[in-house]
Amino acid sequence: MKRIAVFTSGGDAPGMNAHVRAIERTAEKRGVETIGIVGGYSGMLNGHFELLDRIRTANILDRGGTILKTSRCPEFHDADQRAAAVQQLRKHGIDGVVACGGDGTFHGAHLLHVEHGIRIVGTPGTIDNDLFGTDYTIGYDTAINTAAVAIDRIRDTADSHGRVFFVEVMGRHAGFIAMDVGVACGAEYVAVPETLTDVEVLYERIVTQGLDKRTVVIVGEGDESGGAMQLAQRLESRYGIAPKVTILGHVQRGGAPTVRDRVLAARLGAAAVDALLEGQSDVMVGQAGPDLTYVPLEATWETHKAVPSYLIDLSTLLV
Amino acid sequence: MKRIAVFTSGGDAPGMNAHVRAIERTAEKRGVETIGIVGGYSGMLNGHFELLDRIRTANILDRGGTILKTSRCPEFHDADQRAAAVQQLRKHGIDGVVACGGDGTFHGAHLLHVEHGIRIVGTPGTIDNDLFGTDYTIGYDTAINTAAVAIDRIRDTADSHGRVFFVEVMGRHAGFIAMDVGVACGAEYVAVPETLTDVEVLYERIVTQGLDKRTVVIVGEGDESGGAMQLAQRLESRYGIAPKVTILGHVQRGGAPTVRDRVLAARLGAAAVDALLEGQSDVMVGQAGPDLTYVPLEATWETHKAVPSYLIDLSTLLV
Amino acid sequence: MKRIAVFTSGGDAPGMNAHVRAIERTAEKRGVETIGIVGGYSGMLNGHFELLDRIRTANILDRGGTILKTSRCPEFHDADQRAAAVQQLRKHGIDGVVACGGDGTFHGAHLLHVEHGIRIVGTPGTIDNDLFGTDYTIGYDTAINTAAVAIDRIRDTADSHGRVFFVEVMGRHAGFIAMDVGVACGAEYVAVPETLTDVEVLYERIVTQGLDKRTVVIVGEGDESGGAMQLAQRLESRYGIAPKVTILGHVQRGGAPTVRDRVLAARLGAAAVDALLEGQSDVMVGQAGPDLTYVPLEATWETHKAVPSYLIDLSTLLV
Amino acid sequence: MKRIAVFTSGGDAPGMNAHVRAIERTAEKRGVETIGIVGGYSGMLNGHFELLDRIRTANILDRGGTILKTSRCPEFHDADQRAAAVQQLRKHGIDGVVACGGDGTFHGAHLLHVEHGIRIVGTPGTIDNDLFGTDYTIGYDTAINTAAVAIDRIRDTADSHGRVFFVEVMGRHAGFIAMDVGVACGAEYVAVPETLTDVEVLYERIVTQGLDKRTVVIVGEGDESGGAMQLAQRLESRYGIAPKVTILGHVQRGGAPTVRDRVLAARLGAAAVDALLEGQSDVMVGQAGPDLTYVPLEATWETHKAVPSYLIDLSTLLV
Repeated sequence: MKRIAVFTSGGDAPGMNAHVRAIERTAEKRGVETIGIVGGYSGMLNGHFELLDRIRTANILDRGGTILKTSRCPEFHDADQRAAAVQQLRKHGIDGVVACGGDGTFHGAHLLHVEHGIRIVGTPGTIDNDLFGTDYTIGYDTAINTAAVAIDRIRDTADSHGRVFFVEVMGRHAGFIAMDVGVACGAEYVAVPETLTDVEVLYERIVTQGLDKRTVVIVGEGDESGGAMQLAQRLESRYGIAPKVTILGHVQRGGAPTVRDRVLAARLGAAAVDALLEGQSDVMVGQAGPDLTYVPLEATWETHKAVPSYLIDLSTLLV
Repeated sequence: MKRIAVFTSGGDAPGMNAHVRAIERTAEKRGVETIGIVGGYSGMLNGHFELLDRIRTANILDRGGTILKTSRCPEFHDADQRAAAVQQLRKHGIDGVVACGGDGTFHGAHLLHVEHGIRIVGTPGTIDNDLFGTDYTIGYDTAINTAAVAIDRIRDTADSHGRVFFVEVMGRHAGFIAMDVGVACGAEYVAVPETLTDVEVLYERIVTQGLDKRTVVIVGEGDESGGAMQLAQRLESRYGIAPKVTILGHVQRGGAPTVRDRVLAARLGAAAVDALLEGQSDVMVGQAGPDLTYVPLEATWETHKAVPSYLIDLSTLLV
Repeated sequence: MKRIAVFTSGGDAPGMNAHVRAIERTAEKRGVETIGIVGGYSGMLNGHFELLDRIRTANILDRGGTILKTSRCPEFHDADQRAAAVQQLRKHGIDGVVACGGDGTFHGAHLLHVEHGIRIVGTPGTIDNDLFGTDYTIGYDTAINTAAVAIDRIRDTADSHGRVFFVEVMGRHAGFIAMDVGVACGAEYVAVPETLTDVEVLYERIVTQGLDKRTVVIVGEGDESGGAMQLAQRLESRYGIAPKVTILGHVQRGGAPTVRDRVLAARLGAAAVDALLEGQSDVMVGQAGPDLTYVPLEATWETHKAVPSYLIDLSTLLV
Repeated sequence: MKRIAVFTSGGDAPGMNAHVRAIERTAEKRGVETIGIVGGYSGMLNGHFELLDRIRTANILDRGGTILKTSRCPEFHDADQRAAAVQQLRKHGIDGVVACGGDGTFHGAHLLHVEHGIRIVGTPGTIDNDLFGTDYTIGYDTAINTAAVAIDRIRDTADSHGRVFFVEVMGRHAGFIAMDVGVACGAEYVAVPETLTDVEVLYERIVTQGLDKRTVVIVGEGDESGGAMQLAQRLESRYGIAPKVTILGHVQRGGAPTVRDRVLAARLGAAAVDALLEGQSDVMVGQAGPDLTYVPLEATWETHKAVPSYLIDLSTLLV
């Protein structure tokens, strides 16, 4: 194996740059060249390739976003387009690929492996943490800390005014972010897809707290109520309480990665290169407890990853 | 003068706690007691008073929000209610009052002075910076830094995806926050009430930048376009470009105050106590350049405070 | 069990307040009262006890330090003094105790159990992470992030000047902090007690890097070279290169806890209360991977906890 | 004027990158090319020049340090070397120069103007704030905020342990940083070159506070006591109180610039280019209140800039 490529795809996540750096440095130590594919699958299709070296990857480890850019690439659903992308990889002499992203990214990677025998290893790069096969994804730790700092700020205001605030955090399909920050910020209620959101309980929680006291409710964007705005409207129409709503949105995404995200990104980067060199393919490299894990790409989206039950318990116990 | 009172009113602003601490410490040094009125004008009406001392004001200087709480108090538009509030002040032997807030707060304070001869001094506590008579208001510096950090994060994502982002910042009547953070974050366009928002120029700015490049547009909530969402819709309906919209909202409000806000809060707190002791009333204490200023409360809302023209110039020059 | 007590002891660690809050809230839910012992073992001796309730523990979860104060208490080495402390516990009707701290804390707790049958459960509260029986200690995650942010800043300067910087981080007996931040910050060399510090290798690393390039070397305070200052002197006397030295010191200790620290503190707080209620004693409650662990207090200091080998490998691989 | 150059010199300061960006963007708008001199005067001597454009200056505005590097250059004290540097400037067709730094930088710039007629304008780039002719220097606002955050953290520990901490902050010749952060952090004592440091008063302040209470003393490195370590030793030898000492050091230097520093850097960058175009030379461009100022370079070091007396007053009033 003489030349590998790496790309980032889907939503950007803090730690992706530390990851790219680790891949380049590891490959260099193993005597392998690293190509950066710019702009995810769309860059692969268009042959937007760039040779990476230690100078290019210097001073990026503490930067949010991804120097390799990212994109959503609907064309990749088309088998002909995937074949064209494979031509690009072959033309550039690429023997193996690291695909950093979420389940959309892994779908594409899996097809490149199955249809064209491309040796490809996935790494979990998404702030949502909703990939089976790893305790944490790259970017998740930064996102929850960013969200918590924002919610601490909102609590200052909620406290000063004795108001009810609903804060919507990211997490389209899973309540990881909402649960972790809910417990971390002492939220009075956490609404997530994993549990039934009961407006009556929520109302009682607010009333018990004291109507002139601050209440902070965290709502995962994937919550079955439809998000913070909808839940607020239900509360208002039923009980006449009008909460202030804040949608954190893209503020949660960028920023300098935390130590955990940088170290996870570094470790999985090194492991992904070594996995390729050992001949692995069609797997995601993750981490469970202190150990590396290797799961088939298909399992990452087919097997459900549950929010830890202890988090759900704490979110009601400590109110 | 033996006993003064202080209250915070309107939207909470970082630095209010440092301000309250400074007032208590200064009064103590001058041999005067300090009463904290809890909950703004509404606490004044209800006699919600608390004796402050150095223990109560310890360790609050770096906390966002306000330990004295705050509220909006529509009852205070009623002259009878104001008379009742004055009874409370007299009953508690209060000889002078510091009112920290924005123009709504100062309206009430002015009436207490005019109608009842209450000795009252205002201090500018609002993140919006839109009060005539002071270069900066307490809380403004923290708010712009909080907003800038959030926008730096959004730029990571905008850069990684080559996308157009519209970010709405606070400032109902004035574009201070938008202009300062727009220049600070290198925004491609800044839309504020003070200037004409020209969708064509905005579109050209985006196109010149390159449609696959990140563009960050800062929109003051008071912008005549009606805010970020409306402006985004105008851009989309006219040119087919659909920006991502983030409304920073209450995230901008809380948090540990910056050094500038703490020092300003400390200085104006000490000066407000001394102004009361010197017999001043119906004035706001502010700062212009290195100097303290004293302007009639009425002037703070009657005279327009303009966003510095150099900021507006820089926002287009450095694009 | 009707009444339990909690105290924090040894060096303060971010998350201790979130921990105390979780203990009080859990106990309340279980129908048990919580007493806060103020000032660690010394407070226990002097009967410095305070009844905790949900108001006292509100709004502390995001504060560094510990509202229960802490101290080093040499008197506790004396058996008579320990007996006197036990009298205080009995006098106040305390049926169980949670002791949050490091190995010094646990030594004392173990003796209270062995000598007097006090039901006592330890929880790992130290930024050093050097306790066997838990993957992470409360405070560690915050400390490494604080250190990393400081080192990112130092790297700005090191880069701008092309200089060699030695930064000493905490960790008297173990190199956890140094290794995690070394990998996270892309340090050119990490000197820890666990590995042999080789000045020749260090010198070569600096020279390879380029003498006019920035080099950042992380030194654990427990390193056998004796710390950053000594290592810098050895480098200078042997090779004539004079690095700038920064000792991070107590800056690493305080600050708002990270989400991981808050959640760990919450979980272990709840688990410690439940362990007492189940009749456990003389154990530390910790976390390994996703699971709670219970290890005899003695094991926490008798069994060596090793810095993960993958961290040590990454620290040289990614240079 | 067709081509100007810019360099950064002396200690790096946050905001220098925002400054370089503003210079390049302004020059471009005026139809002038910008050359970046890499490594300060030493880069000028060696002809280490780089053409700047909007791509090179993109995404640097929120980065600490300086992309143009900096250095101390003792050779520049030699008139022959200065003549050689001027040759380089002429060879590269440079018509004007912006020199960003402190008084050392301005000495050199002044000589280039006087000896060789180089058109050169200085801008204040130093975290120390000790240059006459401007209210604030680029980098100062960031440095005081970084220091304050660190001291807030130390206060957590000081509070938890009831200990006396001495914290040394930067400021070789002036106490600006110490005074601003002392007031901002509620320090019990602030020792600066500008005032007499009285160990007896300091001791009384600590004792009054309560010996088991936290005391935080801020010491400017330029204090006549010789710094925090020396002052601590004097306190210990005379009164037997042994404070913990932390020297913040280079941690204060880097990091993302605050909004004030970015806006100041932007404004002074634009103004410096325009000053060159208007034919100005041998002056520093600064800001006083809302206005731009232009002072002869010589005045910046010959005229003493005093720490505002209100800060000194507040540092004792609010204790």
